[in-house]
Amino acid sequence: MKKQLTIGIDVGGTNTVLGLVDREGNCLARTEFHTQRSTNEDGPVFFDEYMELLYEAIERLLADAPEDSRVEGIGIGAPNANFYKGAIINAANLTWKDRSKPSKERLGDFEKQNRCEVVKLLKKRFPAIKAIAMTNDANAAALGELHYGGGKSLKRKDLVEITLGTGLGSGFVSNGDIVYGHNSFAGELGHIVVEPNGRNCGCGNNGCLEAYASATGIRRTALNLIDNTGTPSSLRKIERDKLTAKDVSIAAAAGDKLALEVWDITGHYLALGVATATAVTCPEAVFLFGGPTKAGDLLMNPLKRYLDKYMMPNMRDTKVMFSKLGEDAAILGASALALNAIAALKK
Amino acid sequence: MKKQLTIGIDVGGTNTVLGLVDREGNCLARTEFHTQRSTNEDGPVFFDEYMELLYEAIERLLADAPEDSRVEGIGIGAPNANFYKGAIINAANLTWKDRSKPSKERLGDFEKQNRCEVVKLLKKRFPAIKAIAMTNDANAAALGELHYGGGKSLKRKDLVEITLGTGLGSGFVSNGDIVYGHNSFAGELGHIVVEPNGRNCGCGNNGCLEAYASATGIRRTALNLIDNTGTPSSLRKIERDKLTAKDVSIAAAAGDKLALEVWDITGHYLALGVATATAVTCPEAVFLFGGPTKAGDLLMNPLKRYLDKYMMPNMRDTKVMFSKLGEDAAILGASALALNAIAALKK
Repeated sequence: MKKQLTIGIDVGGTNTVLGLVDREGNCLARTEFHTQRSTNEDGPVFFDEYMELLYEAIERLLADAPEDSRVEGIGIGAPNANFYKGAIINAANLTWKDRSKPSKERLGDFEKQNRCEVVKLLKKRFPAIKAIAMTNDANAAALGELHYGGGKSLKRKDLVEITLGTGLGSGFVSNGDIVYGHNSFAGELGHIVVEPNGRNCGCGNNGCLEAYASATGIRRTALNLIDNTGTPSSLRKIERDKLTAKDVSIAAAAGDKLALEVWDITGHYLALGVATATAVTCPEAVFLFGGPTKAGDLLMNPLKRYLDKYMMPNMRDTKVMFSKLGEDAAILGASALALNAIAALKK
Repeated sequence: MKKQLTIGIDVGGTNTVLGLVDREGNCLARTEFHTQRSTNEDGPVFFDEYMELLYEAIERLLADAPEDSRVEGIGIGAPNANFYKGAIINAANLTWKDRSKPSKERLGDFEKQNRCEVVKLLKKRFPAIKAIAMTNDANAAALGELHYGGGKSLKRKDLVEITLGTGLGSGFVSNGDIVYGHNSFAGELGHIVVEPNGRNCGCGNNGCLEAYASATGIRRTALNLIDNTGTPSSLRKIERDKLTAKDVSIAAAAGDKLALEVWDITGHYLALGVATATAVTCPEAVFLFGGPTKAGDLLMNPLKRYLDKYMMPNMRDTKVMFSKLGEDAAILGASALALNAIAALKK
């Protein structure tokens, strides 16, 4: 029997990264290309151009597959990817145009204009590969954690992945599969309201978790304390527009009081989010992923202190820890989605 | 082919109610008995006595089944029921003792002492019925809604049921099945924190949704406004210990300002809960079930107003409505669990 391989594809705003992955989560080959490169330097970037680059990249990986193996699935993690439709819809950071649509329709229907049917096109191009699926980055990360990361040591396939970055994403795994919801938009833990009448959020609401516990939220908390307290801080010397969550981390590690207060506030809000996620789906573990987790105990200590307060007493056997996915996390997440797609075909 | 029937059993603190249910959700026969009746009037109630009463009741229903039908499954809804273990564990309102356990074990292990393995015993007694399962009341109500209530008109099998009563329970259906979580305790929406440092809750935490949006919470809000505002109200004439959510409903319907304020506050907190449930699992519909829903628009109007504020803009196609389950809701919920157990056997 041939060794089963999958291809994991991560569509980022800057680069598209692909890898050939075995069942143990080893990345046997990698390739990448610019996501929004046009054949015409000055012109708009068309979706069909992107797909040609993607086909070529996949073919490079297929050529790299060892003789005794077979690529059985392709998984794609992409912003605003709709699992049911296999399409990327209205992704703010992807400015592809779809020239296959008549211009009247483009103007008339925002969704149709911006609907990029990646899965349908890949199935057409690679008919031998039956299992092809796409979901958003956070869901892919959750499945990556399940199959290749911290989920491997869990007794049950129930976990939550919280991805901290510019935004705050999340993926909920129940009984081995993602909770997609009726329209594939589930897992928006970043947009639960943790502070009624609080900070404005990109989604249009106020007081969302994302506005507090993402890298951007951490930055906003720091600026807020700089503006509204007299606490001395090394962060006051950093140019306002350049202040980042990483700066807050470095300052806090050096004992800066204001920076430590920022992490305390971040831990408070993140604990509300983790406690809520746990009350709703009661996972065996909640994994935190992304840049701000590099702060380590600066984040984890206040988080655990507030979890003791906010987590329902009989839920406290849910473990909360940092992700065990390494550098290839995005590729592994997409590859893990392919594993689930292969399993779904066998059902 | 014989007509498929199921038996739905609702274990309440006072009565155990059973019904014989067809695929369309018609209850063909019913029976009931006191849940905590001992054969010895003054003695403790033993679990094995309870099971004898349950066996008899099930046999009565089996005898009632029409000739051209077959009972293929039994579902049980019970407080603190653990789906995975098929057992009722530490239910506060059920005071059964289990005399099959040696007393040392009883003292040594609280869980074992109070673990009533209903499913195992029923399988032993009724070996011809292969699909037997048990879950808590809110999960059963969610499945009842799915198979026999408002869920019938949904496109996808994704819904949330919120049960309002003395407490606030919830059941999350994703892709046709309950999200049970790693230890069967998922769906505790009543214990998300909506008011840090808020009211004390029976779970040991503070500020839980249940402390505000249950019938008990509504009563507490009314008493709080009576004590801490000067607003005139007909509710002030009711004896403090006897004031109920129903009184608040009657007063509000008559235009009582304080009572209307209570519903506004209730709507605010419930909206936080519904918006959170939606952000996490993105169901096609959220159904509200239980006594306080009889308040109708008094509850629904403020709820919808606050949902416009708290629900993430791209989640607003999730419908929020009252349950479509009628009088036999508890029996139908348990019967629906049996339907899922039958389907699981066929997988």
